Amino acid sequence: MTETTAPPGLPQHGRFATADPDADIHEWLADWRRQAPMRVDVVPLAGLRGWRQDADTGVLAHRSGRFFRVEGLSVEVPGAAVPRWDQPVLHQPEVGILGLLARRDGDTLRVLVQAKAEPGNQDGHQLAPTVQATRSNWTGVHGGRPVPFLHHFRDPDPRRVLVDVRQSEHGSWFLRKRNRNMVVLTDEDIVPPPGFRWLSLAQLHRLLRHDDLVNMDIRTVLSCLPAELTARAAGPAGDAFTAALRRSCRPGPGSRHHTGELLHWITDVRSRTEVDADRTALRGQAAWHLGEVSLRHDSGLFFEVIGVDVDAEGREVASWSQPMLRPCGQGVVAFLATRLDGVLHVLAHARVEPGFVDVVELAPTVQCTPATLDYLPAAARPPFLDQVLGAPPERVRFRALLSEEGGRLYRARSSYLVVETDDVDLESDQYRWVTLHQLSELLRHSNYVNVSARSLIACLRGLLDAG
Amino acid sequence: MTETTAPPGLPQHGRFATADPDADIHEWLADWRRQAPMRVDVVPLAGLRGWRQDADTGVLAHRSGRFFRVEGLSVEVPGAAVPRWDQPVLHQPEVGILGLLARRDGDTLRVLVQAKAEPGNQDGHQLAPTVQATRSNWTGVHGGRPVPFLHHFRDPDPRRVLVDVRQSEHGSWFLRKRNRNMVVLTDEDIVPPPGFRWLSLAQLHRLLRHDDLVNMDIRTVLSCLPAELTARAAGPAGDAFTAALRRSCRPGPGSRHHTGELLHWITDVRSRTEVDADRTALRGQAAWHLGEVSLRHDSGLFFEVIGVDVDAEGREVASWSQPMLRPCGQGVVAFLATRLDGVLHVLAHARVEPGFVDVVELAPTVQCTPATLDYLPAAARPPFLDQVLGAPPERVRFRALLSEEGGRLYRARSSYLVVETDDVDLESDQYRWVTLHQLSELLRHSNYVNVSARSLIACLRGLLDAG
Repeated sequence: MTETTAPPGLPQHGRFATADPDADIHEWLADWRRQAPMRVDVVPLAGLRGWRQDADTGVLAHRSGRFFRVEGLSVEVPGAAVPRWDQPVLHQPEVGILGLLARRDGDTLRVLVQAKAEPGNQDGHQLAPTVQATRSNWTGVHGGRPVPFLHHFRDPDPRRVLVDVRQSEHGSWFLRKRNRNMVVLTDEDIVPPPGFRWLSLAQLHRLLRHDDLVNMDIRTVLSCLPAELTARAAGPAGDAFTAALRRSCRPGPGSRHHTGELLHWITDVRSRTEVDADRTALRGQAAWHLGEVSLRHDSGLFFEVIGVDVDAEGREVASWSQPMLRPCGQGVVAFLATRLDGVLHVLAHARVEPGFVDVVELAPTVQCTPATLDYLPAAARPPFLDQVLGAPPERVRFRALLSEEGGRLYRARSSYLVVETDDVDLESDQYRWVTLHQLSELLRHSNYVNVSARSLIACLRGLLDAG
Repeated sequence: MTETTAPPGLPQHGRFATADPDADIHEWLADWRRQAPMRVDVVPLAGLRGWRQDADTGVLAHRSGRFFRVEGLSVEVPGAAVPRWDQPVLHQPEVGILGLLARRDGDTLRVLVQAKAEPGNQDGHQLAPTVQATRSNWTGVHGGRPVPFLHHFRDPDPRRVLVDVRQSEHGSWFLRKRNRNMVVLTDEDIVPPPGFRWLSLAQLHRLLRHDDLVNMDIRTVLSCLPAELTARAAGPAGDAFTAALRRSCRPGPGSRHHTGELLHWITDVRSRTEVDADRTALRGQAAWHLGEVSLRHDSGLFFEVIGVDVDAEGREVASWSQPMLRPCGQGVVAFLATRLDGVLHVLAHARVEPGFVDVVELAPTVQCTPATLDYLPAAARPPFLDQVLGAPPERVRFRALLSEEGGRLYRARSSYLVVETDDVDLESDQYRWVTLHQLSELLRHSNYVNVSARSLIACLRGLLDAG
């Protein structure tokens, strides 16, 4: 499937009327989908090859003890709209590497991407970082092939490390999962092997606007690049919005709050909010039913845990089985954005997810699965959801349907939006206007910005390369 | 007990030959020790008033379910000198407030301290922050009196918050305990009530050099103040050491490593190091014996958990009982320091403590209890201990015997040292030379700098006020 016209829902840009400058990328991915197809069959959870279900607890684990486990989580958040619930959770204590190899070419930063299929992806292959490997990948638990380019990230020259920070993944589905996000510079003249290719940062930024094309792992790594670097690399500002976006990426005055105020706010929310998340058995969880086929909520909502058999070519291992988490319904992930004194700010939400290491992280203004809202109390409805969904088209600065991580999540997709508003009076206990530079400073450290916000930050910064 | 001469082990300064400018502080504390003595009796753990020991697990908890619990911890650190051990641990999920109220008086920063007795303190009253309160203190679980000045920290004007960050406590004794370190500015003309008094930052800095006088809670809060502020407040540089110390507190070039390199190093150590710390029962722990009187290690080393009955005046609650952790032997906490291009650097150690939230934190070059070393494998001996203990007196820039937190720890004391060296070639996987400004930047965030390092940072910065 190649895309030579704008996918549905993408804002129309003039350039789509003429030849698509990224047509070769689409063709390249389509080639890989043909040449190295990945076959994914949904199969019953019970009897999944290589996996063992504990008879007492129902906990699902690989027979090697590695990879990840499906466990139960019992959550209490006193005072929240939903103050108590049980849920299954993916527990993967291993820290993997998401590594992007980069090269300076005059003023242009080029990055080495790969066409990578994941069992959960909508369309098989998407653009992925140079290295995307769990510890099990490279320590040989798989019994698979060595991971190409891994050595660039295992012991790099510290002066060539642009990014190296452990960041969280979806805290509603994973328990304290972190991946190591890295960008390492190289001077080597690397001729990309099959399945790899150099892209300029600007081209990668453009590609973010296509549905299901740039995978989540590359988006989170991009978001950890210093915002200034993005703003410097991009061309001259066009309209007032782009100028405000560029200013937002740069240090200096113009932010609504000092960074010290933001840190105080985050500490305050973390101190006031009590979250108890205890690992439990899967059997006996209220409202969750562990059957032969899958593990699901009685309402049919939230998510289910399914089993899959995978047959793939061009992978470290050609064939395997695993549980996957399949969200029930498409997500909405949106920043409200506004210009304050000519500097673009986004409305960050200090959001609780039970799998977070430190109570809350900054999330997009809206992050939810609308299909679940009818089931939940009215107070659980995100305050700005209607404003986002009802925004007039000309205020929608970014929109794309993007896939979440496809190694553990099955066809998890969300509509990513940036919606501009003139209503600046939206702050409350859990919401603050922040600049992209401030988010970039926080992204040097763990536990501050969640994965949905990171994806959206990459997309928003990418608009600087709209030209 | 007043101290009008230098305590043993304190480097001799000329001013001790003349009248002690801090004599009134010593007298004030001595008055409080007389007026409001705290009586602490060591009593058997079994039958401790208000506390319940679980018959199966041995876990000790307060009947209210609040305060803290004594639980078991089973630790694995593959590849470490001691790769596996069991231990009791204090589990206190509540985040307390350590709050220092501050006031600008021209160029002088004044802070409001209190004379506070803690059951674990060597000498009863020490100087403490304005507010030192667990959540149980202010939510009334104690049934005690309201905490003075708490309202300044509960809902402050964000622009008056100088410091607000949650920092770890001893990760070898506490499981993921954090306290909220705050400094808040006030313009109010506060006349200190009995037991409180305004001190200039410079005077407090001088007092850090006295044994058992400035408590741990005030030291950790001081360390979180921006280093630049300390350097600005202090007078003109004297000798070359002081000049190098002042430069170390300021931003700008001159650090051995860029901050990005340090963050990469920390991420790398965290990613390579595997720490499993599982909460367990107390009964049945290898080598630990839970008796009627106390909970102790068969070797008589490490620490024991004892019971105490406390009778106090001038507290929220006048009388109570509690378990306490009594370390067996005095600690050594030391930074090696060196001047690199005229900028003072300290040798930070990326140290594992099982109670840390995120694998390692930066610790002093040496942090150990020498009495335990004979029991442990030779590889567990800290690499720079002999260099610190054998340093010639003129290279010892700071030395004091300071108390650890006295609310949970019974007579826990360590010798705090800063030892200068000309040997700069000391870095290895777990050690890096860092400036005080870099540590200060890290201290804006949680999980980077451990409590022993924070104490020592406060002491070292305090040397700028040696005049």
